[in-house]
Amino acid sequence: MALIVQKYGGTSVGSTERIKGVARRVAKYKAQGHQVVVVVSAMSGETNRLIGLAKEILEQPDPRELDVVVSTGEQVTIGLVSMALMAAGMKAKSYTGAQVKILTDSAFNKARILSIDEENIRTDLANGYVVVVAGFQGMDEDGNITTLGRGGSDTTGVAIAAALRADECQIYTDVDGVYTTDPRLVPEARRLKSITFEEMLEMASLGSKVLQIRSVEFAGKYKVKLRVLSSFEEEGEGTLITFEEDNKMEQAIISGIAFNRDEAKITVRGVPDRPGIAYQILGPVSDANVDVDMIIQNVGVDGSTDFSFTVHRNEFAKAMDILKNQVQKHIGAREVIGDDKTAKVSVVGVGMRSHVGIASKMFRTLAEEGINIQMISTSEIKISVVIDEKYLELAVRVLHKAFDLDQEAV
Amino acid sequence: MALIVQKYGGTSVGSTERIKGVARRVAKYKAQGHQVVVVVSAMSGETNRLIGLAKEILEQPDPRELDVVVSTGEQVTIGLVSMALMAAGMKAKSYTGAQVKILTDSAFNKARILSIDEENIRTDLANGYVVVVAGFQGMDEDGNITTLGRGGSDTTGVAIAAALRADECQIYTDVDGVYTTDPRLVPEARRLKSITFEEMLEMASLGSKVLQIRSVEFAGKYKVKLRVLSSFEEEGEGTLITFEEDNKMEQAIISGIAFNRDEAKITVRGVPDRPGIAYQILGPVSDANVDVDMIIQNVGVDGSTDFSFTVHRNEFAKAMDILKNQVQKHIGAREVIGDDKTAKVSVVGVGMRSHVGIASKMFRTLAEEGINIQMISTSEIKISVVIDEKYLELAVRVLHKAFDLDQEAV
Repeated sequence: MALIVQKYGGTSVGSTERIKGVARRVAKYKAQGHQVVVVVSAMSGETNRLIGLAKEILEQPDPRELDVVVSTGEQVTIGLVSMALMAAGMKAKSYTGAQVKILTDSAFNKARILSIDEENIRTDLANGYVVVVAGFQGMDEDGNITTLGRGGSDTTGVAIAAALRADECQIYTDVDGVYTTDPRLVPEARRLKSITFEEMLEMASLGSKVLQIRSVEFAGKYKVKLRVLSSFEEEGEGTLITFEEDNKMEQAIISGIAFNRDEAKITVRGVPDRPGIAYQILGPVSDANVDVDMIIQNVGVDGSTDFSFTVHRNEFAKAMDILKNQVQKHIGAREVIGDDKTAKVSVVGVGMRSHVGIASKMFRTLAEEGINIQMISTSEIKISVVIDEKYLELAVRVLHKAFDLDQEAV
Repeated sequence: MALIVQKYGGTSVGSTERIKGVARRVAKYKAQGHQVVVVVSAMSGETNRLIGLAKEILEQPDPRELDVVVSTGEQVTIGLVSMALMAAGMKAKSYTGAQVKILTDSAFNKARILSIDEENIRTDLANGYVVVVAGFQGMDEDGNITTLGRGGSDTTGVAIAAALRADECQIYTDVDGVYTTDPRLVPEARRLKSITFEEMLEMASLGSKVLQIRSVEFAGKYKVKLRVLSSFEEEGEGTLITFEEDNKMEQAIISGIAFNRDEAKITVRGVPDRPGIAYQILGPVSDANVDVDMIIQNVGVDGSTDFSFTVHRNEFAKAMDILKNQVQKHIGAREVIGDDKTAKVSVVGVGMRSHVGIASKMFRTLAEEGINIQMISTSEIKISVVIDEKYLELAVRVLHKAFDLDQEAV
């Protein structure tokens, strides 16, 4: 008998028919003798409808009151799912975030979980109930309703699994696992049977939007066994996300090719090579709430260097404006140039820690196709390059093939 | 400076535009220096939408889970109303029933309020906030979400007013007050400036559906000054519901003519005139959840009597079936006869306590029109008669005129 936390996203509970499907799946696990906690999102479209109502009142709705409104989405789902479980012959009981007591800080719209009181859930499970918990929400110590921000239901699922020391946290989505790359781009892309947390973090942050990054970090921190599955397939084992590299009997060197189409690069030329210069350049950018992705600074020559970074394409104009009008003169840089027709491609794999030659293989593969590399950034388990966006699809395809990702690992 | 509780029903908050209208009205009261608590229902149609979703899952939804789902309707409204108040320049804060701590019993779908913790609201009011409370809902001592049943938002409004010892509880609806009778039937019907609680109870239970009966009882019990107003008119003083007859400077003898079109009468003939017989007849009816309205038993002759009562027309067949097949033989009654083509008309007024001749005037007025009276029942402040339903409109019109209800009281 195992204790399993199952998290269902908005499309998986998008209609009463689909909710009945969730109940059928839970029934299977119950029939096998498992204890099941179900964590659910709002029915698809509902959160946007509620935000829309709020914006009709006020373009910038009050954060506290927005959480009061938006959190009703998941509350409706927990009631309906509990009813569906009962209709399928199970005992079930719903909990809002406040009822569980999922204690968060008071950062409305983007709260962080501080603690979870799991005692009542544990008692209900012992008494044979399926427990249904509202994802995405909690309450602060003053009893205010809070939400964790978009995608926060994944985090709730993992946090509940951690608090209960569940055997597995299953995340049901509309994809059946994590792939070596986007199958829409590369038809030969394969579903990975397992992937390490570190790889998953790199894959997620690089645009493989299967799981919310925070939930993966959370799972890693509390060593929760995480599995991504499709809620639209009866069978299928999805992709297991492991937190110990050694657990894997067979380790592919490279797990996948991630990419990001919306990357824009900015270079500040002729920057005085002195301490504090990075902060002087990026401080004003970050103050304007522009997220910076890759940052590259090469060794300086003659007391001067070039400083490059990438931002989301939508924020390119804003960032350029800040640099040209606030930063350039202030730090005495020669010029600021940028290009928003770029893309980022990354090769990810924990195996590269112990294997040499991955970088050179990547660069050679791209060179053979005549693709110029504009920027390079590396971490322990990934190598990212920025290239002209028009070569993106080609680069992903040839790298996928070069690293044998279309072959089952032996 | 007064403390005013304003309750807005579903149509008054039926769109974001109307919610902005609520904010404008509250702003007026705040500008006059009053403290305001706003109690709101779900946006019109929302409760039915949520119940509909639940019924798609299960025809008889689990009561606890139904309350979890349905209570979200008011929760959305409190958030939106609070935002609208802020947009209109006020400080505002929303409370769900659980957040106020409106403690109820655990009778899901029809819970009763046990106590209200008003301390936080009082603090917020003192700090200049408009407090917005979700009507219709509370929580039981185990932290389960409960609802008070349909129309329960009125009860919440009155209960909050009682707990805060508010100066006035204003109930905003789509009518501008309580009328001497239904204006659709009698165009000369007048809005009453005031009405006593006792009269209101009789008017409400007789079908003047302006206020939920329970809320009026509640107001009477805790001596809350209640006012019914239209949320669609800028001006207008509505109808004040008073709990002390003596407060009225001028007292009309009769306040209004109430009526009920859906009355069906049943008579059990030749009933043995012995103790316990009423219970033996009505016990099985009530066990079948059939609500009984008027009950009449006349003095017996030769150890035998006739027993009559009225039920809602929809439950006529069910009640007849119970009496004919379970009760008649058991108690040894001669026969059971019924008529579902009847209607009830009532003359209501506290003034009749100190005035004689009201009953005879009513009976004479009906007789002059050739309307036969089938049953009569009286209380201290009302006289009800059951008549053939085809005379209903005529009876209401002539009584309205006979008691000078179309004239302003002098």
